Amino acid sequence: MVKAIEWKDGKVIMLDQSKLPIEVQYIECTNYEIIAEGIRKLWIRGAPAIGIAAAMGIALGVQDIKAKSYKELIKGLDPVFNTLLLTRPTAVNIKWAVERIKKFLRDNKNESVQRLKELLIEEAQKIHKEDIEVNKAIGRWGSQFIKDGDTVLTHCNAGSLATGGYGTATAPILVAMEQGKKIQVIADETRPVLQGARLTAWELMQAGVPVTLITDNSAGALMKKGEIDLAIVGTDRTVRNGDVANKIGTYSVAVLCKEHKIPFYVAAPMSSIDFSIPKGDRIPIEERSAEEVTHVFNKCQIAPDGVRVRNMAFDVTPAKYITAIITERGAFRPKDLRKLMKKDINLDEIRL
Amino acid sequence: MVKAIEWKDGKVIMLDQSKLPIEVQYIECTNYEIIAEGIRKLWIRGAPAIGIAAAMGIALGVQDIKAKSYKELIKGLDPVFNTLLLTRPTAVNIKWAVERIKKFLRDNKNESVQRLKELLIEEAQKIHKEDIEVNKAIGRWGSQFIKDGDTVLTHCNAGSLATGGYGTATAPILVAMEQGKKIQVIADETRPVLQGARLTAWELMQAGVPVTLITDNSAGALMKKGEIDLAIVGTDRTVRNGDVANKIGTYSVAVLCKEHKIPFYVAAPMSSIDFSIPKGDRIPIEERSAEEVTHVFNKCQIAPDGVRVRNMAFDVTPAKYITAIITERGAFRPKDLRKLMKKDINLDEIRL
Repeated sequence: MVKAIEWKDGKVIMLDQSKLPIEVQYIECTNYEIIAEGIRKLWIRGAPAIGIAAAMGIALGVQDIKAKSYKELIKGLDPVFNTLLLTRPTAVNIKWAVERIKKFLRDNKNESVQRLKELLIEEAQKIHKEDIEVNKAIGRWGSQFIKDGDTVLTHCNAGSLATGGYGTATAPILVAMEQGKKIQVIADETRPVLQGARLTAWELMQAGVPVTLITDNSAGALMKKGEIDLAIVGTDRTVRNGDVANKIGTYSVAVLCKEHKIPFYVAAPMSSIDFSIPKGDRIPIEERSAEEVTHVFNKCQIAPDGVRVRNMAFDVTPAKYITAIITERGAFRPKDLRKLMKKDINLDEIRL
Repeated sequence: MVKAIEWKDGKVIMLDQSKLPIEVQYIECTNYEIIAEGIRKLWIRGAPAIGIAAAMGIALGVQDIKAKSYKELIKGLDPVFNTLLLTRPTAVNIKWAVERIKKFLRDNKNESVQRLKELLIEEAQKIHKEDIEVNKAIGRWGSQFIKDGDTVLTHCNAGSLATGGYGTATAPILVAMEQGKKIQVIADETRPVLQGARLTAWELMQAGVPVTLITDNSAGALMKKGEIDLAIVGTDRTVRNGDVANKIGTYSVAVLCKEHKIPFYVAAPMSSIDFSIPKGDRIPIEERSAEEVTHVFNKCQIAPDGVRVRNMAFDVTPAKYITAIITERGAFRPKDLRKLMKKDINLDEIRL
């Protein structure tokens, strides 16, 4: 399986996904600024993967801090945290990784500075390993929704490349195949950055999953022909009421699914669920540069010079369009998501 | 106003739209084979424009036929007709132009061969002029649906470049502006061939119409934000029950409009209405090459080598999604379209 990111010999090896599938190039990251640049420039993308990248960035960053005390170490980490937090405003996983590391540091404040530096490397690798386990669990809970012979539509990339491995939206597909179901995937190309064409199609081909690429605007016509049985997408941020922020176009897919009575699933690791936000219209939506739209792949100009462009990177799909949200703790109706905030909940009562 | 095609000094001057908006290149066509190549390679596209091109192609083709009698002339035209008819299977306007010229020849069979050659040039130019008049009439009937301050979504290109001039979907917009309404247009880029980004955005900028370019998958999110008031699209072929074949993605726009209670209009010159076909599922849909999807603008590779692709050039929007079909004879509910087949119909009774 392709690895988006890996800790190796004191460095972070990051696959530059912005060049895929034409070039397969790995970047050796020796400090946190390169990690931040990689997140910002989409060398690495996908909510879980950038959470892992942020943790590894912190683990790199801490090595260079000349601190004599815990207090000095924490102070030295401030610019590391801030730089990473500012890279992608919509992504909750960076915040999640920063909070986790901060808590980890508090819990280990009595360790020596040198020991803390070692422990942060272990913690970042642990975050990576946990993510793969999370995805496998999403795969197990989600595979129940895929029948033998099904065709699954997916949008953007919520696969191996978007995670520590295994993927979120792709995990149910991979598990269903392991269960012997014959399935195929239709991948939306996902303009403007074309993660579906460049990444999903590529990684599924590598994994031996039958995949067909379409333009985003073909999904509706295929649904009308009865050629799509279900849709599974990932999420950048899911909020308390079950509304889901994901790559632009996700909302359109959800509306089309509703019109054609096709189930629409969201694969959401718990780390991407932001219970602090009550509903989707409170999620800040990143607007990106016009050039992403006017110049495909940063070079092919496809629109007139100076044309006005609206380039919203994400949209919000209201809970009412979502059949189930698949997490590592089970698959749930969006309205039941808030119940996961309670510690004493009996999950079997609300699991699908 | 930009001209897609023009008869000039015994030749046809065709703008090569496949290179827009980067290069503005005109092709001098001296025989019908070049015209056919232009239609096939999308130098010229848009239902009315290729009807005009076909007529001009016939007018060119007839000049080279060495015939001594009417019968020989007609026989000589067979390969001309056949070549043109085979260029684009979904387009009804080529068939329409061929039938019109055939009838014109029958009606003038007593003229000399030399005179017929001259008359066909006049007839082709007449078809061109009539098209502009048709579009202006569509503009007058359609402008009633656009209010001051409205934002109009359009898909693909049904503008000046797709017609003899003035456009079909753009005509109501241009007339509304002439009426002093302040409006703006949002143009779907329209993958895979990007007619929206390359052509609609370009020609509207040239015409001074405020236009914003979006990726196809952004329309739903903008509708949810309340930023689109109505949609107007063109059509390649509309059939008896009011079902509409148009560029892939049109159907998705129509479904999204329904979900957001946004009116969805189709600008359809009578020549694009095929009363011989009872309903949309009988319209042959052209599937085009994988390379159109995998290589943007014929050069930028955006998908893995050898990936399977589904590239339907068109989709069919059922009549139930369409608020009105705007023709040069008036705007009608799709269900009333069949009434236009009757000669004695009182149009005022069914016009919107």
